[in-house]
Amino acid sequence: MKKLTILLTLLVSINVLAQTDQDALKTIYSQSLTNGKAYQWLDYLSNQIGGRLSGSVNAEKAVQYTKSELEKLGLDKVWLQEVMVPKWERGAKEVAHFTSNYNKFDVNICALGGSVATANSGLEATVIEVKSFEELAALGDKVKGKIVFFNGAMNPELIHTFEAYGGCSKQRYAGAYEAGKLGAVGVIVRSLNLRQDDLPHTGSMGYMDLPNEQRVPSAAISTNDANKLSEALKKDANLKFYFKQNCKQFEDVLSYNVIGQITGSEFPEEIMVVGGHLDSWDLGDGSHDDGAGVVQSMDVIRLLKESGIKPKRTIRVVLFMNEENGLRGGKKYAEEAKRNNENHVFALESDSGGFSPRGFSFDCSEAALNKVLSWESLFKPYLIHYFEKGYSGADIGPLKNDTIVLAGLRPDSQRYFDHHHAANDTFDAVNKRELELGAATMTSLVYLFDKYGTSNIPQVKEFKD
Amino acid sequence: MKKLTILLTLLVSINVLAQTDQDALKTIYSQSLTNGKAYQWLDYLSNQIGGRLSGSVNAEKAVQYTKSELEKLGLDKVWLQEVMVPKWERGAKEVAHFTSNYNKFDVNICALGGSVATANSGLEATVIEVKSFEELAALGDKVKGKIVFFNGAMNPELIHTFEAYGGCSKQRYAGAYEAGKLGAVGVIVRSLNLRQDDLPHTGSMGYMDLPNEQRVPSAAISTNDANKLSEALKKDANLKFYFKQNCKQFEDVLSYNVIGQITGSEFPEEIMVVGGHLDSWDLGDGSHDDGAGVVQSMDVIRLLKESGIKPKRTIRVVLFMNEENGLRGGKKYAEEAKRNNENHVFALESDSGGFSPRGFSFDCSEAALNKVLSWESLFKPYLIHYFEKGYSGADIGPLKNDTIVLAGLRPDSQRYFDHHHAANDTFDAVNKRELELGAATMTSLVYLFDKYGTSNIPQVKEFKD
Repeated sequence: MKKLTILLTLLVSINVLAQTDQDALKTIYSQSLTNGKAYQWLDYLSNQIGGRLSGSVNAEKAVQYTKSELEKLGLDKVWLQEVMVPKWERGAKEVAHFTSNYNKFDVNICALGGSVATANSGLEATVIEVKSFEELAALGDKVKGKIVFFNGAMNPELIHTFEAYGGCSKQRYAGAYEAGKLGAVGVIVRSLNLRQDDLPHTGSMGYMDLPNEQRVPSAAISTNDANKLSEALKKDANLKFYFKQNCKQFEDVLSYNVIGQITGSEFPEEIMVVGGHLDSWDLGDGSHDDGAGVVQSMDVIRLLKESGIKPKRTIRVVLFMNEENGLRGGKKYAEEAKRNNENHVFALESDSGGFSPRGFSFDCSEAALNKVLSWESLFKPYLIHYFEKGYSGADIGPLKNDTIVLAGLRPDSQRYFDHHHAANDTFDAVNKRELELGAATMTSLVYLFDKYGTSNIPQVKEFKD
Repeated sequence: MKKLTILLTLLVSINVLAQTDQDALKTIYSQSLTNGKAYQWLDYLSNQIGGRLSGSVNAEKAVQYTKSELEKLGLDKVWLQEVMVPKWERGAKEVAHFTSNYNKFDVNICALGGSVATANSGLEATVIEVKSFEELAALGDKVKGKIVFFNGAMNPELIHTFEAYGGCSKQRYAGAYEAGKLGAVGVIVRSLNLRQDDLPHTGSMGYMDLPNEQRVPSAAISTNDANKLSEALKKDANLKFYFKQNCKQFEDVLSYNVIGQITGSEFPEEIMVVGGHLDSWDLGDGSHDDGAGVVQSMDVIRLLKESGIKPKRTIRVVLFMNEENGLRGGKKYAEEAKRNNENHVFALESDSGGFSPRGFSFDCSEAALNKVLSWESLFKPYLIHYFEKGYSGADIGPLKNDTIVLAGLRPDSQRYFDHHHAANDTFDAVNKRELELGAATMTSLVYLFDKYGTSNIPQVKEFKD
């Protein structure tokens, strides 16, 4: 009889708990959808500030704005964390064309972030097209004096578009490095875009240890124009490609990570981070990448408060600076955490756009993932179904250790690369409800991990909560 | 030993089958994403033809175009099925404003489909705002001579936006009927849109059995202007609202359902339908509603062929006419099916937009749903996770009987009502990959039901397939 009583008590506890969590998630989602602030903040970041490249005036404005907005939320602490960031400027808009049989064809390009400029008069040369680094290596000396045109396309068959991106992003990042080593004079890279359109997509590139004379200008070309150029090369292998870009690298400048905190009521030394990156590329206004992640993260900490949840652990929103071209903010945050012997138990990043949330990918132990899977039914009413092992996020990556739970929000990815790093990454491409659902989904995960902890505590212990 | 052998054979069979289905789905999705025709067809339907209201020249063009495209696919049979449809025309663009304290405020309205026009000079009256039919009933005689303003808003807390739509669509459909009975002189209805914007959303309304003198003009007002009007009414209950609309109902005209068929190789008498509706509202070009469903359905039958699948059952693509304001095509198709003693075992409709597919809702037996659930893991790589009982689609509804499996594609619904029945339901709002993923998801379901049948055949029998 005693055993039965214990069992019944346990069962009742489970029911009460389950009901409580269901109610908590319902409150969180309703708050976000009826009383969310993410969209309003994004409107300001995108339309009043705009693109926020590291080291720019806009990036500084975004630091001040988000700090001031966090201060309005009545958190326990809001502060700036100093971080030195690279400063690169695009300068005047790029121009490019190719000429074949005395006909001139204008094409849409943009300098890749970190590239050197061309000479003031521009750069003109013949073009060799490759679709992989293997093809480039096989060409060897033949690329000398030429522009290498990397035309590897994202694979449309992959359902996860980030996999397709990963499959050819090295062209953009290391194309100039590999081609420069072989004596190429310039590099044109097909935009990392699954769509056929006229927009060039920028993004970071690096020369690594190349000497200055091998650092050649590198630009992205729109997918439509990449196809046009490729077709033209089939007919005229000697066509001339001309481009002019005016970008410039400056000395590093001081910038900041923006941090806000609710101190935990029971385990203040256990820190849970939620964040996105405040910097963006300069062509659009960075609404999806990563204005969305910034305002969702800010709303996580607000939604917890609005939903009447008092976290047991310390919840920190971190708006990282310089994810796009240096990751200095993410690295600095992890360094400081280590220096201060802080115990980070959980970090969640939103940096895959503000689209309809589908779930999370986790970089964590099996035990922690199993804990998440036990919450699957709680998320089902909100159509959140994706809980898989995988990549979390660039900014929180440096926090990785054996015990931390790292997670990345996974929104629907089909439209993401239509806008990524391009002039159409703008506020109008973000749907208010999709953004709010993402914020609520993040808040729900933070709520559950705060409540149940990130270590593999036996279930029975948790009934005390 | 013999038992073990049988068991092993069974296990091997299961594995082989599973592998085959996995491969089939992979082929279908790859074909759709690399070689799909849906987007190209939609481009033509939307940009070369445009809005396709029943009885219009454009609707006739769409009939001829889709018939001719189906004929190019080498199907066993393509034909038109005659159906008489209502013909209603909007006429010149509507105008509306309200005046309060000698100030005039312009507002965005559009006539609801089926409404009568105002007098040529327009209609002006004072306004009574209600948010429900209960409020209207309580007002009774007080609405006499007035314009009733139905301002019930879609509930943003509901995750499934179609539920929020269902929660207030009666205002649009029956608002004029209920208000007209009470002596109102006109009806203004808040647009069925979760967003705050300036676009009025049309849609069907009906006067049912009302005598002509009680048939009052009925229009939708944009959500922004509904809010503006509501605020103004709080300050000035006697403000005057003016609107003028020029719509007209004509005699019914002849139109068609467009049908294409692959005749089944083993069970030709078992018919499986996949379809969408060819007509649309007139304000946009009907890309999401329901151009997407039309071209996806067309591509289902093409993708089966391209993927080397020879259906055992008869597969029919049906492009229904007149879903929006009469459902005549759906009714006619079911009548003819009954008259010809056809055995329809399955019908799938896509009429919820061309957004990222999430799954299906099913109107079918538990046994059939369980069969679907046994396929869940096949769909998982494509992020298809939603398999629930529920509504299928308007056009296939009339086919319902005790044994048929009715299904509706369920795309992500968050953006749908931003565009629904409004001027921004246009081609640019459709993402190519999302559309193609939808077509592949539909094709996969058709493939599986064709292969395994729709009745609850014991699993062991299926191993013969």
